[in-house]
Amino acid sequence: MNRLKQTIARIGTLNEQAMAAARARQDSLTKPQGSLGRLEELSVRVAGITGEALPSIRDKAVIVMAGDHGVASEGVSAYPSEVTPQMVYNFLRGGAAINVLARHAGARVVVVDMGVAADLEPHPHLLVRKIGHGTKNFASGPAMTPDEAVKSVETGIEVVEAEMARGLDIVATGDMGIGNTTPSSAIVAAMTGASVESVTGRGTGLDDRGLRNKIQIIKRGLETNRPDPEDPLDVLAKVGGFEIGGLAGVMLGAAANRVPVVIDGFISGAAALIATGLCPRLADFLIAAHNSVEIGHRILLGRMGLEPLIDLNLRLGEGTGAALVISMVEAALKVLAEMATFSEAGVSEAVETAEAG
Amino acid sequence: MNRLKQTIARIGTLNEQAMAAARARQDSLTKPQGSLGRLEELSVRVAGITGEALPSIRDKAVIVMAGDHGVASEGVSAYPSEVTPQMVYNFLRGGAAINVLARHAGARVVVVDMGVAADLEPHPHLLVRKIGHGTKNFASGPAMTPDEAVKSVETGIEVVEAEMARGLDIVATGDMGIGNTTPSSAIVAAMTGASVESVTGRGTGLDDRGLRNKIQIIKRGLETNRPDPEDPLDVLAKVGGFEIGGLAGVMLGAAANRVPVVIDGFISGAAALIATGLCPRLADFLIAAHNSVEIGHRILLGRMGLEPLIDLNLRLGEGTGAALVISMVEAALKVLAEMATFSEAGVSEAVETAEAG
Repeated sequence: MNRLKQTIARIGTLNEQAMAAARARQDSLTKPQGSLGRLEELSVRVAGITGEALPSIRDKAVIVMAGDHGVASEGVSAYPSEVTPQMVYNFLRGGAAINVLARHAGARVVVVDMGVAADLEPHPHLLVRKIGHGTKNFASGPAMTPDEAVKSVETGIEVVEAEMARGLDIVATGDMGIGNTTPSSAIVAAMTGASVESVTGRGTGLDDRGLRNKIQIIKRGLETNRPDPEDPLDVLAKVGGFEIGGLAGVMLGAAANRVPVVIDGFISGAAALIATGLCPRLADFLIAAHNSVEIGHRILLGRMGLEPLIDLNLRLGEGTGAALVISMVEAALKVLAEMATFSEAGVSEAVETAEAG
Repeated sequence: MNRLKQTIARIGTLNEQAMAAARARQDSLTKPQGSLGRLEELSVRVAGITGEALPSIRDKAVIVMAGDHGVASEGVSAYPSEVTPQMVYNFLRGGAAINVLARHAGARVVVVDMGVAADLEPHPHLLVRKIGHGTKNFASGPAMTPDEAVKSVETGIEVVEAEMARGLDIVATGDMGIGNTTPSSAIVAAMTGASVESVTGRGTGLDDRGLRNKIQIIKRGLETNRPDPEDPLDVLAKVGGFEIGGLAGVMLGAAANRVPVVIDGFISGAAALIATGLCPRLADFLIAAHNSVEIGHRILLGRMGLEPLIDLNLRLGEGTGAALVISMVEAALKVLAEMATFSEAGVSEAVETAEAG
């Protein structure tokens, strides 16, 4: 618990001086002020996160955390749990969507076993940080113990801090875990008070009957466990997942080190809800990548005051949306650093339109 | 006129066979079917455009066309016309936003003087294809002659076909021309029948008085010239611009050669409206990059059945939004080509949820 408390204590506020300098430079560049819209805002926020007036990105990583879920035995997913380890091997061989999109963005993929039910074969690029062999079925009791909840978050902090040692200027979060939209919906319902129906979607492709069943299971889990919305670690322990706790830790650890975090879709969002519950200041360090098809996603982003950058009807997870957005953050920072100013380029600035008319 | 007619005749339809093959491959890749949303659709459409089941992108270009507008003398822009040549020099020195974003996307920038009012100094990377020294003020008569309208479109075809010889797998369109949201709004109003108020925005930053003036000028121009909405070349001649005609030509020429075209914002959109007016099949070859802040943009995209990929409150032009989207198209094609299939990766496919429940 000490590591978690110390990490939270180290999370600061955005650096106003760096943001003011970035904003002033944006206004001096050869374009109408504000005409690059959200790219300009993004560059200013990353300046505030890093504390640098002209931040640059060299080392990029997508941290993909995998875990299994006892609740998957309730038929809440269109895929069997054996797909979790199969997909981990796919990540390690470079054949999954996140591998392709991370390569395109020039980011490395860090694969972490936070709690896959199977024992995975060792691989030089696999970090085995198992908290357990899958969570317990939260429909009939807590998903994990309070100690395991803390340990999963602290493990995420350790993983991201180890990545810092390899060089890390921006990190994206990704997930793999058959059934993990179910704990994510449960977390969102528990933390926001929204109805289970309003935050539960079809995941990887449930039909109507499957969706009704999933909603019933989540309701039963919340009634059985009664997670305390004021205590994010209690919510994580009762209805969460090991990879979700780990991702919350990645976010906290990155923010404590002033590294911007691009959060992917619904599962990363549920992790962010846990993490910002533990430390509300964290939200300033998070960049919401995309608007997931999962219906609870917008509710949870709204709760954190985050507005996604893209909306491409993605619902894959793994960090795929976040990988696309890493490239956009880089573009925003290159605009800030590389464009000519009006005076450098000898370009006339805007005239007052009232006079021009 | 012959070149234009021949080019239009060469524009075919999407290759259904290539699209079916791309769609089948998408469904075999290690992800839930459809879970990469619009990236999947994009890859299938590019397969249809190129006629290749596994299209790949190597050579990319942003063609930025510049022109001046007589109507700028009516005070319709926050910037003076002298900024058009100043920005062209900025493009040639690599200091503008489009240079930064094209470099980020690995695309070359092709700068074309289609009708800047000033005589530009020669530069090895500047294509001088001047149709005239700026258009005439369309508030009091046609912007250009019918011959100039045809010549501007045919010049755009020539420019893109010359780029094909250098290697071109995808092309993005960009514009520079102080005052050019005014002819663009006039084109949209003329071609769609929408009210001038509903398609006229603040451009680079007009205040309320400037916006009212701009609307009045466009209304006067449409009343004076009475462009024929059934004759896109008549609309171009009466209220258009040389760079707008050129960009329409780039789109037609690229489509005739089965090269996908990413169209940028409002000015490229107005050019696309002219071009699809000449050849409705063209719309299948166009990828709408972003949803511009300019209010007329969504109306014109809707008319062509195009849905923008990103929405970042951009209103700069130059091809900046399109450059960002080039990278997204590449990502979509890499997913199609590089991901492992279920059978290659030994990953189990979805089970029927009715049974699983």
